[in-house]
Amino acid sequence: MHPQYYEAGDTLLQSGTVLPGVRLAYAVHGTLNAARDNGIVYPSHYAGTHDDNAWNIGPGRALDPEKYCIIVPNLLGNGVSTSPSCPPPGMASMDFPAVTMLDNIRLQHRLVTEVLGITRLALVTGHSMGAQQAFHWGALYPDMVERIAPFCGSARTSRHNFLFLEGIKAALTADAAWAGGHYAAPPVTGLRAFARVYAGWAWSQAWFRERLDMQVLGLPSLEAFLTHAWEPHFLSKDANDLLAMLSTWQGADISANTHYDGDFHQALAAIKAKAIVMPCRTDLYFPPEDSEIEVARMPDAELRIIPSIWGHMAGGGLNPADATFIDTALIDLLAR
Amino acid sequence: MHPQYYEAGDTLLQSGTVLPGVRLAYAVHGTLNAARDNGIVYPSHYAGTHDDNAWNIGPGRALDPEKYCIIVPNLLGNGVSTSPSCPPPGMASMDFPAVTMLDNIRLQHRLVTEVLGITRLALVTGHSMGAQQAFHWGALYPDMVERIAPFCGSARTSRHNFLFLEGIKAALTADAAWAGGHYAAPPVTGLRAFARVYAGWAWSQAWFRERLDMQVLGLPSLEAFLTHAWEPHFLSKDANDLLAMLSTWQGADISANTHYDGDFHQALAAIKAKAIVMPCRTDLYFPPEDSEIEVARMPDAELRIIPSIWGHMAGGGLNPADATFIDTALIDLLAR
Repeated sequence: MHPQYYEAGDTLLQSGTVLPGVRLAYAVHGTLNAARDNGIVYPSHYAGTHDDNAWNIGPGRALDPEKYCIIVPNLLGNGVSTSPSCPPPGMASMDFPAVTMLDNIRLQHRLVTEVLGITRLALVTGHSMGAQQAFHWGALYPDMVERIAPFCGSARTSRHNFLFLEGIKAALTADAAWAGGHYAAPPVTGLRAFARVYAGWAWSQAWFRERLDMQVLGLPSLEAFLTHAWEPHFLSKDANDLLAMLSTWQGADISANTHYDGDFHQALAAIKAKAIVMPCRTDLYFPPEDSEIEVARMPDAELRIIPSIWGHMAGGGLNPADATFIDTALIDLLAR
Repeated sequence: MHPQYYEAGDTLLQSGTVLPGVRLAYAVHGTLNAARDNGIVYPSHYAGTHDDNAWNIGPGRALDPEKYCIIVPNLLGNGVSTSPSCPPPGMASMDFPAVTMLDNIRLQHRLVTEVLGITRLALVTGHSMGAQQAFHWGALYPDMVERIAPFCGSARTSRHNFLFLEGIKAALTADAAWAGGHYAAPPVTGLRAFARVYAGWAWSQAWFRERLDMQVLGLPSLEAFLTHAWEPHFLSKDANDLLAMLSTWQGADISANTHYDGDFHQALAAIKAKAIVMPCRTDLYFPPEDSEIEVARMPDAELRIIPSIWGHMAGGGLNPADATFIDTALIDLLAR
């Protein structure tokens, strides 16, 4: 689907830097009703675009475009919204400034309110960094968000998760061809290393024990899985885009702003939305223990653990059982 | 402690290659008794030497040198035994051949039998790759090994564990300074990347959630932990040594030999030794599920899971509670 573009103009970032000529790309499935109360925001995840959320939207599903107006904004840095790979005119890729979750959510809020004229959202949901955005919406606009359903993501990037991201970053930037971001041709060796390190984290130990990499994708070996499926996924991305989104991810924290001034518990307690929080039992970087801790501090949240060996990728839509689990939870939540 | 050297001479490897002038470095704690039945083998782990096992040996401990003769052989490739960094005369570092677990165990067997005159071992124990060596001793010399106590290790490297190792390998070799092994100066960027990727795997998510990196080591931040503790550990190692041991690890499998011809279940069933197998509950690359599967196929094995958030490093000796847990199990096993 071709996205639409919200030309947000020069935008003051949380860091104090102005990012000029910001474009927020977004897709819309369905239409707003007369009361404008059927809007759902479903932001993109790391290294994904609006298209990567399409599996979870359709007639008969919870996110039914015949009932809801589902808005899918693209993360800054993802290569579709303003990004290192498509920077503002006159800006070099490596000069792209650090962007926070708050910057993304404020921008999405402007789109939703100023452009689309929505004052209450029925739901914000998302996978991974999309889940983190759902938590941020809930904490930053508590009176506007009726429900949140974050899956395989947290309200704050844990220290271990941060470290996992340091690892993939170190693998990518170990390639001298990256050149501090000043590459002319893609740093292929670094992107391959990035992919190979990431592969160990994305699914669970049991997923590989059961050889689902071979069964699901029909590939003859682990090496084939890496070289024919996983590496091409990241080789198709821009290195500086990957690093920009990674920086946003590492800093994600619903309390890292002047509203909450670092008081994480206060920020969780401020989320008025009805919530179903869905970690996967075997997620290696968003483990269910973090969700359990967060849900305990949220006033109206249910913890519903995805019982899957798909690890973080339980939220990726490839496993029908997990997709159904998430869809069922969304149906339950939207009925509340 | 200065090691002793067993000059094993030209050695036919499992691959069919002859590794000339092999030296096996080993340390001995205690003395053999007259019956020569108090020998214990406690091999080194990945990127470790005989010195890294010393914490687990001492008067009053299970591995008491006043009662036992504890032999600590160094893995081929670890920089003390014959390795890429100390190759046979005339061999270049990058020409060091692939060495298997079988190659190591056969060499250790020659040391133990031909040099030390031992025909039965009271115990073989070890951490991580040391645990893998204990499993190999049990499967390859079932009539010679009375007991095995592998901790934080498996009888066969799992597919997920293999993938984790592919990741750290890719991070190291993404540095062009590695130059296919032909480096003159160490590939510092690659070694740092290797360390940063590895750091995410060595402890559990909970260990970082509890900030034990700061509490235990007295460091002010995660970044300080990486740059002042973890990176220097791997910067002190030789890159080709790390890759040689990694290759041995990836191929570890007690049935990958002519004795068992790939029949893993048969190899597990052949282990006559009394065994206590100790995975750590939160180990990310030797998870307890793999140990459970292996123990179920072993005739005389007990599964005793280390109840720790120290992950793989529960077997490293730094956490007193885990060290006591392991010591207690060794005392129990040696009393059987």
